[in-house]
Amino acid sequence: MAVVTEYLHLSTGGNGDIEDITSGVQDKLAASGLRDGVVTVSAVGSTAAVTTCEYEPGLVKDIKALLDRLIPRGEYHHDQAWGDGNGHSHLRASLMGPSLSIPFSGGQLILGTWQQIIFIDWDTRSRKRQIVVQMMGE
Amino acid sequence: MAVVTEYLHLSTGGNGDIEDITSGVQDKLAASGLRDGVVTVSAVGSTAAVTTCEYEPGLVKDIKALLDRLIPRGEYHHDQAWGDGNGHSHLRASLMGPSLSIPFSGGQLILGTWQQIIFIDWDTRSRKRQIVVQMMGE
Amino acid sequence: MAVVTEYLHLSTGGNGDIEDITSGVQDKLAASGLRDGVVTVSAVGSTAAVTTCEYEPGLVKDIKALLDRLIPRGEYHHDQAWGDGNGHSHLRASLMGPSLSIPFSGGQLILGTWQQIIFIDWDTRSRKRQIVVQMMGE
Repeated sequence: MAVVTEYLHLSTGGNGDIEDITSGVQDKLAASGLRDGVVTVSAVGSTAAVTTCEYEPGLVKDIKALLDRLIPRGEYHHDQAWGDGNGHSHLRASLMGPSLSIPFSGGQLILGTWQQIIFIDWDTRSRKRQIVVQMMGE
Repeated sequence: MAVVTEYLHLSTGGNGDIEDITSGVQDKLAASGLRDGVVTVSAVGSTAAVTTCEYEPGLVKDIKALLDRLIPRGEYHHDQAWGDGNGHSHLRASLMGPSLSIPFSGGQLILGTWQQIIFIDWDTRSRKRQIVVQMMGE
Repeated sequence: MAVVTEYLHLSTGGNGDIEDITSGVQDKLAASGLRDGVVTVSAVGSTAAVTTCEYEPGLVKDIKALLDRLIPRGEYHHDQAWGDGNGHSHLRASLMGPSLSIPFSGGQLILGTWQQIIFIDWDTRSRKRQIVVQMMGE
């Protein structure tokens, strides 16, 4: 059993930029040499989320539109305190959650054919992002 | 320390079919012989979710009604591309998340008395589903 | 590799009481002596949630207001069955999810500067709560 802690580095556009990080995670897994275990994928920061979806352009638009509707940009207490206008970004990130645990077996992530790991930057500006990719297993 | 990767196989009705998989997960844990560690429960596919709830008929109806209200069946970009009419299924799954990590101790899942592990099939048709149940521990 | 299972004990006010448990989790991690691995933080019970946010008073109000809007207190099937009036509490907990996996490295949780681990008690009354903090690593 071993632990291997790696990072992905992304430059995002913010504003609901949704990136498919599946191959980045799979590459880190391959480099670790581990065959069976779990990978924890975790966004560093409080305005980004990690989940899975079928990564195709229509659904990418739908996810952004969904959160625009459920948690619109607007007046939040957070913005009154800080004036950075990203209260909605924080709320979307907290609701969706910052981390994801995906099992792997035989050196492969166990995902559906149409299931990709996505990183969503909900912040209101371009960001350089760090994503933890930690493999644990044997 | 060891890793044991198992699967549950379910036939669901789709359309918000909510299944209590707690005893299925507990059985896999018992068979693994592991006493202390974490189990990762992960839906294979992008139209299903895993979380916990008090599994009783009223709340099962409430969860389905909640998602029917927050993310109604309707016109999504995903549907225009693929014509399979399950854009809302994907969105519900991505929002709720596909996987869950539950610690265990003394060979028992650490859950509340009224807290069960549920698998929700948000797709629009009956499906045969695979759920990863991966135990890691000692 | 080792597993260390610990608990935090909280007295909450319920009704969307949001507690910053980061230092509590970090203290358990320090006491474990583990340097690299993952901590699973898991709410015991079906009316509480765990996620991360920037813990500041404005955002704490915003999170409560968001869930009050998306899943208002009201008439749910669960309440009709049990009469305890906390259907909305269950729904909020199931949507947000009960557990969170955070990697650690060099004995430190890998979180952003403005990213704290929060426990939210969505129940309708004061509760004594147990939170599992399980470290796995080396």
